[in-house]
Amino acid sequence: MRVDLNSDLGESFGAWTMGDDVAMLDVVTSANVACGFHGGDPSTMRTTCELAKTRGVAIGAHPGFYDLQGFGRRPILGQSAREIEALVAYQLGALQAMAISVGHRVTHVKAHGALSNMACIDGDMAQALANAIKAVDPSLYFVVIPLTELEQAGEAAGLKLAREIYADRAYEDDGTLVSRKKPGAVLHDPTAVAGRVLQMIQEQAIVSVTGKRLPLTVDTVCIHGDSVGAVAMAKAVRSTLIAANIQIGSFSKPA
Amino acid sequence: MRVDLNSDLGESFGAWTMGDDVAMLDVVTSANVACGFHGGDPSTMRTTCELAKTRGVAIGAHPGFYDLQGFGRRPILGQSAREIEALVAYQLGALQAMAISVGHRVTHVKAHGALSNMACIDGDMAQALANAIKAVDPSLYFVVIPLTELEQAGEAAGLKLAREIYADRAYEDDGTLVSRKKPGAVLHDPTAVAGRVLQMIQEQAIVSVTGKRLPLTVDTVCIHGDSVGAVAMAKAVRSTLIAANIQIGSFSKPA
Amino acid sequence: MRVDLNSDLGESFGAWTMGDDVAMLDVVTSANVACGFHGGDPSTMRTTCELAKTRGVAIGAHPGFYDLQGFGRRPILGQSAREIEALVAYQLGALQAMAISVGHRVTHVKAHGALSNMACIDGDMAQALANAIKAVDPSLYFVVIPLTELEQAGEAAGLKLAREIYADRAYEDDGTLVSRKKPGAVLHDPTAVAGRVLQMIQEQAIVSVTGKRLPLTVDTVCIHGDSVGAVAMAKAVRSTLIAANIQIGSFSKPA
Amino acid sequence: MRVDLNSDLGESFGAWTMGDDVAMLDVVTSANVACGFHGGDPSTMRTTCELAKTRGVAIGAHPGFYDLQGFGRRPILGQSAREIEALVAYQLGALQAMAISVGHRVTHVKAHGALSNMACIDGDMAQALANAIKAVDPSLYFVVIPLTELEQAGEAAGLKLAREIYADRAYEDDGTLVSRKKPGAVLHDPTAVAGRVLQMIQEQAIVSVTGKRLPLTVDTVCIHGDSVGAVAMAKAVRSTLIAANIQIGSFSKPA
Repeated sequence: MRVDLNSDLGESFGAWTMGDDVAMLDVVTSANVACGFHGGDPSTMRTTCELAKTRGVAIGAHPGFYDLQGFGRRPILGQSAREIEALVAYQLGALQAMAISVGHRVTHVKAHGALSNMACIDGDMAQALANAIKAVDPSLYFVVIPLTELEQAGEAAGLKLAREIYADRAYEDDGTLVSRKKPGAVLHDPTAVAGRVLQMIQEQAIVSVTGKRLPLTVDTVCIHGDSVGAVAMAKAVRSTLIAANIQIGSFSKPA
Repeated sequence: MRVDLNSDLGESFGAWTMGDDVAMLDVVTSANVACGFHGGDPSTMRTTCELAKTRGVAIGAHPGFYDLQGFGRRPILGQSAREIEALVAYQLGALQAMAISVGHRVTHVKAHGALSNMACIDGDMAQALANAIKAVDPSLYFVVIPLTELEQAGEAAGLKLAREIYADRAYEDDGTLVSRKKPGAVLHDPTAVAGRVLQMIQEQAIVSVTGKRLPLTVDTVCIHGDSVGAVAMAKAVRSTLIAANIQIGSFSKPA
Repeated sequence: MRVDLNSDLGESFGAWTMGDDVAMLDVVTSANVACGFHGGDPSTMRTTCELAKTRGVAIGAHPGFYDLQGFGRRPILGQSAREIEALVAYQLGALQAMAISVGHRVTHVKAHGALSNMACIDGDMAQALANAIKAVDPSLYFVVIPLTELEQAGEAAGLKLAREIYADRAYEDDGTLVSRKKPGAVLHDPTAVAGRVLQMIQEQAIVSVTGKRLPLTVDTVCIHGDSVGAVAMAKAVRSTLIAANIQIGSFSKPA
Repeated sequence: MRVDLNSDLGESFGAWTMGDDVAMLDVVTSANVACGFHGGDPSTMRTTCELAKTRGVAIGAHPGFYDLQGFGRRPILGQSAREIEALVAYQLGALQAMAISVGHRVTHVKAHGALSNMACIDGDMAQALANAIKAVDPSLYFVVIPLTELEQAGEAAGLKLAREIYADRAYEDDGTLVSRKKPGAVLHDPTAVAGRVLQMIQEQAIVSVTGKRLPLTVDTVCIHGDSVGAVAMAKAVRSTLIAANIQIGSFSKPA
């Protein structure tokens, strides 16, 4: 059994830093790199690509809405499918050039924040995302949340998919994340998180808060990089999986 | 004899328009497309790529400083060579992805505004520009102003160069542009401009305000797209050249 | 009888111009000045204040979402009442300082684009707008669209209200604007527009597409400044009203 | 004897935090609040004003260049005196409104980063700064670095001046700061810094690296808020001064 560990990195902007990218890059096997619209800037992107290359970490574009102040987390309505396609292609291309500049290459795309949240339930937006990836480079992996419009659009576009689960979020019975407003929505204990991730990988299923199983192929586990204790949690997940003989490796680099 | 006509296009931003791109694309053979930092936005870039493709117009990246309010015309000091490289690679990659998305491709790079002006006289900045192009795609043409650090850096990097002259600007004896503060710095009469361009192409030399000749290979003529009468001037230049049996075609598409 | 004519001005940004502000300032009696978040920049704001002062035109802040690329027209969700208050106070203060700098003063506030549209139907957002105005300067007029949450929030806050009608937009029976997607939503003929405005002022009522009357006090008429023919339409409205002995003057400067 | 302690605060932006404002506000007597152009955003500004009011800390506008990515530290050339005036008035007004909103008020202005550095040696830019302050509110204090164009422009404009010294920077014999490229330019030991500040206040003179005295009135001491150990250094300075019977209080609130 084999799984990828991914994290959102390169989210610093100018004089402001976010997260401990160097430490996270020693733990994960895929980095989703912010592309300058919600976080990141050209120099940060370049540094992130260099650090990832040195450590053999795969990189993906992490496009978001054009909203630095809101960190791409605010839903921005009124954008056409055509605009979403251009928004994604732009950010993807920017990261591709940066990766090539340092001898690395982009192998996946994962939508950020409100762009992802909206596309999970909006088929047109999900299709715009998939179309943008396909039009720029159809060989890229599309990281999707299972049981969403993202997954459907990726399949319909014929893209290679990497299905992800969240390490530290609780799931409802329908596979959606428990709202952050509810108690228990976010898990904080590294040991508990690691154990739950191991269970979902071994069972190849999302395990909901009520214990319901939703079978899926777990290709990658999302580990948040910017919260307190992120690195400790990431290490706990990694060591727990390794101890259980789960191989850790990027979905884009088959063993 | 053969020459390219280039213009800076795709400079609209959001709800604000600039220039008459559709009209200019019927006249020029190369479009320098703004990449979102000083002008342009993803949707405008995409539309410009589509319009250029339909008309067989070559496209190039036109990277500028990250300064929408100043339209990339304000010198921004304190940026390292490494930052300039990242700034250029980012914008170039963004346009490459947009071009690929619509079935076109980027074939040249030309620096915009203060980035170009500063690099003309700053060897380190010129080298950073050339390095960025080389690192992203060494097959691209680098449009340079002759007798500047840009030209030297491009040569040193082994890039294919396209040397450009300005249709509507007067030259000093050393090949630099006459300052806009001096009378006669900018030429406004389409017939006079066209005649002067023809002369410089036929003589393969810059002709200064005092009549001095500075020999060079004239690969491309820059025609401004955002001034009053830009389209009329562009048409005058084009028809004058054709009448004199000068072929008009992109440097990136040898006849 | 007396009415104010208002228009959204100062919407140029950096090198990009929008509308013919100088011409409009000779026609209207109140200018809603963009404050740099969706359009406008400090220098444009200053120039607009100077031009308005010279012509005796009243000025108001025209705050919008922080979204230059979308010109403040895109609904941005996920902003708390507290954030909206700060957003409005910031822009209002910026314009106040600019006005004071040139010897003018701000006398009203009118929300722009998506901020206005959302607040028309969202009581919390409308209240945040009213609270911001009250907290910064309770003597300011609040320009509101009648029969909306804006009007209710302004009344509840005890602000002086200026109720506006649109010169060139058709109304539904409930007082809302006919959707731009429907035919006849926007009126283009200056004579027809002027006649309809006169009727609504004389009857002190919105007249809907079916002829229904919705009584209200018409304090001000919004005339768009950035569309083709804007100046001609503004002049037609003004001259028609004057010919009918309607006085034209700002609501903030009682005769 | 009496002196003010000031620090640059409110420099967080959106999801990115900078410095420990709450801790610093318990130590300093004046806060220079970023106004959204190089750092800060409306909500951060409001929170900073509220925190300062609660603690009785005076607030001032800390205007900078419109350059979030460069944090206002990059010199941006090509801005006219008129543009600088508008840039400063805008930011000052924005903060005034925010302060009024929460029951506080702005009592000083201090230029940030490259705007300050450039104005120290550029008389026209310094005058533009002073003019902006005077035009918006001539009762405000202008925090200046002694022996610079800032001080001269402030005096010429008739503004109330607050002359500041830097707690942690070494001075050359002419009163300028030792370049950060030289060893010893920045002092890191809290005890040494506090002792040196005490000496300069007691002697009412800048003491240069060679021991030269440059007499001046020391109105305020700048303590950096965003470096490692900033809070510890600020506390050391404060307690050392208090132990030596120096009163600590804002220059804008005479004892």
